[in-house]
Amino acid sequence: MAVLEKPKDRVSYHDSVEEMLIRIKNDGLTSVFSRWDAQEKIRCTFCLQGVSCQLCTLGPCRISEKAGADKGVCGIGPDAMAMRNLLMRNIMGAATYAHHAYEAFRTLKATGEGKTSFKITDVDKLKWMCKQTGIDTNQDINKLAVQLAELLDREMKVNPDQQSIMVEAFAPKKRKPIWRDLHIYPSGVQHEVELCIASCLTNVDGDYVSLAKKALRLGLSTIYTAQIGLEMTQDILFGTPMPHEVDVDMGIMDPDYVNIAFNGHQPWVGVATLQKAKKQEYQEMAKHAGAKGIHIVGSIETGQELLQRFEVDDVFVGLMGNWLSIEPFLATGTVDALVMEENCSPPAIDQYAEKYQVALVSVSTIIGVPGAEHEMPYYPAKADQMADECIKIAIENFKKRHKKISPKVPKFKTKAIAGFSTEAVLKAIGNDLNVLVDVIVKGQIKGIVALANCSTLRNGPQDWNTVNITKELIKRDILVVAGGCGNHGLEVAGMCNLDAIEFAGDGLKGVCKALGIPPVLSFGTCTDTGRMSMLVTALADHLNADISDLPIAVTAPEWMEQKATIDGLFAVAYGAYTHLSPTPFITGAPNLVKLLTQDVEGLTGGKVALGDDPVQAAQDIENHIMNKRQKMGLK
Amino acid sequence: MAVLEKPKDRVSYHDSVEEMLIRIKNDGLTSVFSRWDAQEKIRCTFCLQGVSCQLCTLGPCRISEKAGADKGVCGIGPDAMAMRNLLMRNIMGAATYAHHAYEAFRTLKATGEGKTSFKITDVDKLKWMCKQTGIDTNQDINKLAVQLAELLDREMKVNPDQQSIMVEAFAPKKRKPIWRDLHIYPSGVQHEVELCIASCLTNVDGDYVSLAKKALRLGLSTIYTAQIGLEMTQDILFGTPMPHEVDVDMGIMDPDYVNIAFNGHQPWVGVATLQKAKKQEYQEMAKHAGAKGIHIVGSIETGQELLQRFEVDDVFVGLMGNWLSIEPFLATGTVDALVMEENCSPPAIDQYAEKYQVALVSVSTIIGVPGAEHEMPYYPAKADQMADECIKIAIENFKKRHKKISPKVPKFKTKAIAGFSTEAVLKAIGNDLNVLVDVIVKGQIKGIVALANCSTLRNGPQDWNTVNITKELIKRDILVVAGGCGNHGLEVAGMCNLDAIEFAGDGLKGVCKALGIPPVLSFGTCTDTGRMSMLVTALADHLNADISDLPIAVTAPEWMEQKATIDGLFAVAYGAYTHLSPTPFITGAPNLVKLLTQDVEGLTGGKVALGDDPVQAAQDIENHIMNKRQKMGLK
Repeated sequence: MAVLEKPKDRVSYHDSVEEMLIRIKNDGLTSVFSRWDAQEKIRCTFCLQGVSCQLCTLGPCRISEKAGADKGVCGIGPDAMAMRNLLMRNIMGAATYAHHAYEAFRTLKATGEGKTSFKITDVDKLKWMCKQTGIDTNQDINKLAVQLAELLDREMKVNPDQQSIMVEAFAPKKRKPIWRDLHIYPSGVQHEVELCIASCLTNVDGDYVSLAKKALRLGLSTIYTAQIGLEMTQDILFGTPMPHEVDVDMGIMDPDYVNIAFNGHQPWVGVATLQKAKKQEYQEMAKHAGAKGIHIVGSIETGQELLQRFEVDDVFVGLMGNWLSIEPFLATGTVDALVMEENCSPPAIDQYAEKYQVALVSVSTIIGVPGAEHEMPYYPAKADQMADECIKIAIENFKKRHKKISPKVPKFKTKAIAGFSTEAVLKAIGNDLNVLVDVIVKGQIKGIVALANCSTLRNGPQDWNTVNITKELIKRDILVVAGGCGNHGLEVAGMCNLDAIEFAGDGLKGVCKALGIPPVLSFGTCTDTGRMSMLVTALADHLNADISDLPIAVTAPEWMEQKATIDGLFAVAYGAYTHLSPTPFITGAPNLVKLLTQDVEGLTGGKVALGDDPVQAAQDIENHIMNKRQKMGLK
Repeated sequence: MAVLEKPKDRVSYHDSVEEMLIRIKNDGLTSVFSRWDAQEKIRCTFCLQGVSCQLCTLGPCRISEKAGADKGVCGIGPDAMAMRNLLMRNIMGAATYAHHAYEAFRTLKATGEGKTSFKITDVDKLKWMCKQTGIDTNQDINKLAVQLAELLDREMKVNPDQQSIMVEAFAPKKRKPIWRDLHIYPSGVQHEVELCIASCLTNVDGDYVSLAKKALRLGLSTIYTAQIGLEMTQDILFGTPMPHEVDVDMGIMDPDYVNIAFNGHQPWVGVATLQKAKKQEYQEMAKHAGAKGIHIVGSIETGQELLQRFEVDDVFVGLMGNWLSIEPFLATGTVDALVMEENCSPPAIDQYAEKYQVALVSVSTIIGVPGAEHEMPYYPAKADQMADECIKIAIENFKKRHKKISPKVPKFKTKAIAGFSTEAVLKAIGNDLNVLVDVIVKGQIKGIVALANCSTLRNGPQDWNTVNITKELIKRDILVVAGGCGNHGLEVAGMCNLDAIEFAGDGLKGVCKALGIPPVLSFGTCTDTGRMSMLVTALADHLNADISDLPIAVTAPEWMEQKATIDGLFAVAYGAYTHLSPTPFITGAPNLVKLLTQDVEGLTGGKVALGDDPVQAAQDIENHIMNKRQKMGLK
């Protein structure tokens, strides 16, 4: 498919998805893609512009100057109304990350206490984290794990009467005084979430600037007191990601195996099941049921968490794709169990479960999927038992599915190099950041863009914008580090393997060839936004520079849900030029748009950039990067 | 004004408000009342029915079977969409109560540490709370305060790996096994808030039953781990409410005084300022500026917190009314400082501040009121200093207001008996619950209704529904205990004084006269929902009965904001018949309506009852109460 030719006859960048949608349509099922068309006929323009409010019984209100309604009944104006709506989305993202972090810290603690089937895999990282957070490392490993887990959990609860250890340890040196001056130096995410919610109540905070500052602080709080700790915890438990070649796209599916897919963001039960499935006895159980064995399949972010830490082999077969591929994936008629614990666990997959004989399994109490017959609340000590249960459920399903449901597996399968991390990048450059600085100074790499993203239909076919802006950026010698569902889109589109070097500009091409890396570094999930920032922070601190001085930017070219919005607000507070597409629902609030796209730059050095055309967006990013280079005295 | 004659020419039950609205109109300002009319022309029917969603970039979506859109793009159906919208409102209420509780516990702790100007006022209650929560009471009072504060703060953070001490101590005995069986036995409110938000994220919980159960659990968590502890803390700090006669309505204002009004829910700075204003030196400061002195004025819930604990005298002049009266109150041209810390701090009062020379002061970081020139973040240790600042700001404002702004004070001033509490009721009946049981058994009192409420225009003029349902209930020999803005409406309407006995039926009349109490017991604010439940719990445990067996009910006849919705969900989980008017925005979700109004009764024994006609609603409540009486073998 040619770059930039926005296709009228396609709804996805990926041929595998297109192929499955034909089956879905023929089988009379609806999908995100078909329901989109129905909703397009009845969209609310007030909601699209952010000037609609349903909070209280004085409402629902809308802002319409034409109708003489320039304020809501309570008196709130369009800017505060839109910003409050946006802050509520931010809160949802922040609290979801915090919940993931809670599960991580609780798992680490239980593991240190010897209550789980997990073990401390990366001892060095555990010690490093303890050192960063002031825990005496001269102790037993398991004690360290417990103490770190307790510290990280406490960090989420830090209030303004206390100091955050994590923020102090991980924030860029030059940012801290700026955040203090702006009153956006954060407390723990649970405190900030509570404060922000209380602010959003009817008749509490009706000032869009005040609300926006709260959103910035919440973003910082989320990354430093939840996300970074949780990713480091997952590294400690399951290993720090290191680059390796993996398989992606739906061609990884084999209908003759018992296929268990792990879907969501939290890898606990997925890892436990993978470890079990590698044992002969479990493979035998599957064979006994008539299967060739058990395959573990990665789906969306949980899949990526597995992918970046485990080799693809004869048990773990790789990653199927991102969230918009879930319904097509189920339609292959090859999935025996879809095990879910967080978003995206779409609410209308019961029709797929029925039609294609899939067991829907929930392993978290936050999940509620109609048609999920198997529900297990997560307790770390029960992960092992839950894994057993998942395998049993899948084998039982296999008996009902195999040779009864006609499989249809698209032939597409692609290689990707997954598993980049700050440590992996440092290793690739011989643990000398000057190597990275040199190629930037020389202009071989003009700059770095972090792509953290979902996948949406609002600005074109699935992953169309994500793939195309990435192609445009690497063509301009801008290195892309990617996380989230967008990253899976790039992996499936072949942008994360060495063949993609051909799309890069000459400078970047040379660097990639010299280091043996693709021009797009798969850094993980949306939860790895914090991880991505750690690389940039390391670079800034190494140069004794501020984030806003660096030739870097952030793009979320297909953001969809609420975690993306808090990542975006973090990026602005962090000091980054932050491209967002689709345009957030704020266009009915002119002062707010000005604040976020212009004025905030005078405060944090970061700002929101808008635009749905990937060529123009990439050009704007390049201009920004060249501008920063110039200020640093670079060509 | 005659009961039940729904007036076409009025927008408020209160003559004082009607009078001020004429001034507001003549002065060319808008108000909640006028903005209502503008919005009525452009209401969204999808939003009114709860089947509109703006969470993600796949949206905004609406449910319209006519348009072939029976699901959102993600696949969510109408029932889950409406319940998720409702749960998000519940979360807002829960987190706001939790934030209030956080401030309370932090104030108690700082006071125990000797860092504030407050002192432990109710030592008996402190000891009682310590005893209830397992703290060794054989310690210094201040140490007890610190330990209790720390325990209560920890309680909000309790997770499923731990046990809540507060729930165990305060939940009705017979309810606990029911909640355990339904998986709605709660953790701490901060944990439940986080879990609920993560559940509401796009593609997480799309099952309306699962979402509804989370709402019930959140309601229980809010009352037991935030609200009860916070009210008890306020009692410990400022005294347990005891009944006494007070003045209410706008006639309490005297333009020749420096008038400082405290508005919101959190009484810290209000109490500190009141204590100071009673000192000669501060009164002298005001006199020096040409005033007759300083008056402290109670506004909405903060006013009620003061009202129920302090005598009305020559410094504290009483309560002006509830939240819909704020704009009219400012228009009197007599207010020098409106000091705000929580809802309702309406967002368009800047026009009033300018027109009538009012200094808008914020004493909490959650507040954001355009035009508020004075902003002080709350730290308990700074309360004293903040009080000084408030007085200074008000005196400065007096110099600019007095004789420059023409005052217009409605002549209406009414008596109310404020300050009922479980302790007060027990005291009134000689600390013998059998006295209460006896009058219920004899049918002098048929039952008890808790009214917890806001004030809204959606179902009629301000407080019209609240006053009329109350009249209908007491006429039927049903005792009303009231909290929230509805309670202030009742106080201003004269329903909380002894003259109101005349509206009661013969049985209730006799009891009121014998005990010297009004037929409507002013139990405080919306935050006192927990306090009201404590009386009912005491009754249930005394009778060894379950809540759902008692001849009681809850009504929220004019609920407006999100704290009311979580109080309502608590009541349903608590086992109470819960009348809600206006109808929540769920009517586009038929299965959800059935669940909340019918099926849930089979689970918790409680349910939601709807209806905007106060006569019919009161009749339905009486029928419910008579039905419960019959089941108990009473006539």
